[in-house]
Amino acid sequence: MEKNLDFLVKKCNSLGKIPAAVVYPCSDVALSGALKARECGVIEPVLVGPIAEINDAALKYGFDISGIKIIDCKDDIEAAAKAATLAANGEVKLLVKGSLHTDIMMHAIMQPEYNLRTHQLISSSCLMHLPTYNRLIFIADMVINIAPTLEQKVQILENAVDLAHALGWENPKVAIIAAVETVNLKMPATVDAAIISKMADRGQITGCIVDGPIDLDIAVDPTSAKIKHFKSQIMGDADILILPDLQSANSLYKQMIFMGKADAADVILGAKIPVVVTSRSDDEETRLNSIAAAALHAHYQTRTI
Amino acid sequence: MEKNLDFLVKKCNSLGKIPAAVVYPCSDVALSGALKARECGVIEPVLVGPIAEINDAALKYGFDISGIKIIDCKDDIEAAAKAATLAANGEVKLLVKGSLHTDIMMHAIMQPEYNLRTHQLISSSCLMHLPTYNRLIFIADMVINIAPTLEQKVQILENAVDLAHALGWENPKVAIIAAVETVNLKMPATVDAAIISKMADRGQITGCIVDGPIDLDIAVDPTSAKIKHFKSQIMGDADILILPDLQSANSLYKQMIFMGKADAADVILGAKIPVVVTSRSDDEETRLNSIAAAALHAHYQTRTI
Repeated sequence: MEKNLDFLVKKCNSLGKIPAAVVYPCSDVALSGALKARECGVIEPVLVGPIAEINDAALKYGFDISGIKIIDCKDDIEAAAKAATLAANGEVKLLVKGSLHTDIMMHAIMQPEYNLRTHQLISSSCLMHLPTYNRLIFIADMVINIAPTLEQKVQILENAVDLAHALGWENPKVAIIAAVETVNLKMPATVDAAIISKMADRGQITGCIVDGPIDLDIAVDPTSAKIKHFKSQIMGDADILILPDLQSANSLYKQMIFMGKADAADVILGAKIPVVVTSRSDDEETRLNSIAAAALHAHYQTRTI
Repeated sequence: MEKNLDFLVKKCNSLGKIPAAVVYPCSDVALSGALKARECGVIEPVLVGPIAEINDAALKYGFDISGIKIIDCKDDIEAAAKAATLAANGEVKLLVKGSLHTDIMMHAIMQPEYNLRTHQLISSSCLMHLPTYNRLIFIADMVINIAPTLEQKVQILENAVDLAHALGWENPKVAIIAAVETVNLKMPATVDAAIISKMADRGQITGCIVDGPIDLDIAVDPTSAKIKHFKSQIMGDADILILPDLQSANSLYKQMIFMGKADAADVILGAKIPVVVTSRSDDEETRLNSIAAAALHAHYQTRTI
């Protein structure tokens, strides 16, 4: 089992660079993230944005962007549209957000004209490595869906499992997290979890082992599972944690990073191509890991794995 | 500033033992927790439960309970009732849950006949120490209130601030956590947070500095606060995190303990006396820290500090 996130870039190296559009890369972090991913053999970037601003930024921050294709646009909205076009034409296999607002970029991806939507919900998943925990673990959805319905939770789960498959987890164990492990009719999270895990029992969700409701200690700590006399295929060894809403997933995610010193790789799935939307406060390592994870998903989709 | 939770027991030592009822201590952990707290000079326990079962447990697990007062009862329900009576009579200053169900104990505390209720909501707060984070931090409410109303969130905040005062935080910084730092009308957590922090601005909440909505990275990480150009009295240095619901607080709490290797001290406040309700999966250190924190609150209430 992988012990940290270094395997993401390593796997990409063995598979070759994936063409990626970097949308509106007009800031220090946006440019450096793209260049670092290129230097590490993860992506071959196409910079989509106002050429003058991109050159100014490169000059200002001392980046060499010679030999990198640039597609000129007048502003961030046009950059998002042109990047979506590249994706629609198959010229790029993934999109990386630069220094524009997330909703401008996601809006472009949603436009029917580019035909990038699928039947699937758009949701985010991340792979976390904590220095204090001996397993890597996926979390979803900490970015996109504020209060997912039962049906949306199933799709969030499916996207997370899809990412896990792309990164090498063949049959991940998925814990549908609630505050308790029993079905409590006053806690909708426990009711939804019971329904979703029964759907998995019935073969309506495949490619993974699903159980819920499970509280977090039972999901990640074998001793707690034993002490609580829990009986499940998931006994403190969950690979994926599906949280009941954005609030609980988002605070868990941020606590792991900013208090737990965790490394993360975040990918948005559900469109025809993976999308990387890192936050202003994410560090370079998280940016690189996220691009690498998205690239691995792109390889996986195009069956080059 | 305290760097870990050792100060809790140390402070208790300087203040003297507090009389505490240990309710239905018929298991290994329930007995050892009470005895450890006595040995450390935190409490003078009164064991309330079936005398035969308590003696059997002591014998079975090799504990010496000679010299400890035992109040005999036929079962866990009577134990909870007799413990509530001791509290009502002022014979004990705090209640510690043994091996009975939490709701049986809380039910007894709620009965009007014991007059242990106040105008205040009953809620849980905890103080956390993470090996990966350089500040101690309080979280609420991870145990009692599933989906608190705005009014209940205010009382959860007040209970957490009350605990912080009792443990030595004179004017704690309270972050009302949401997934984003802006007010988003689609996210009730951000709306409630805005209202509560304005109530604090107006002097309707005192003894603390309150701001919200704040997302978790800004609340606990000064660098993130700076990068996001956040302007607040709370810039990555929050002392207390108020989460919007039980689900988000509970998963945060369990992740810190079971993935983050955190130490915790949990206290339930809002009744006339503090109550300690540790989980089956909590370790001895958490049990001792929790009893010590509750004892400090009892000292604080009885003005012995």
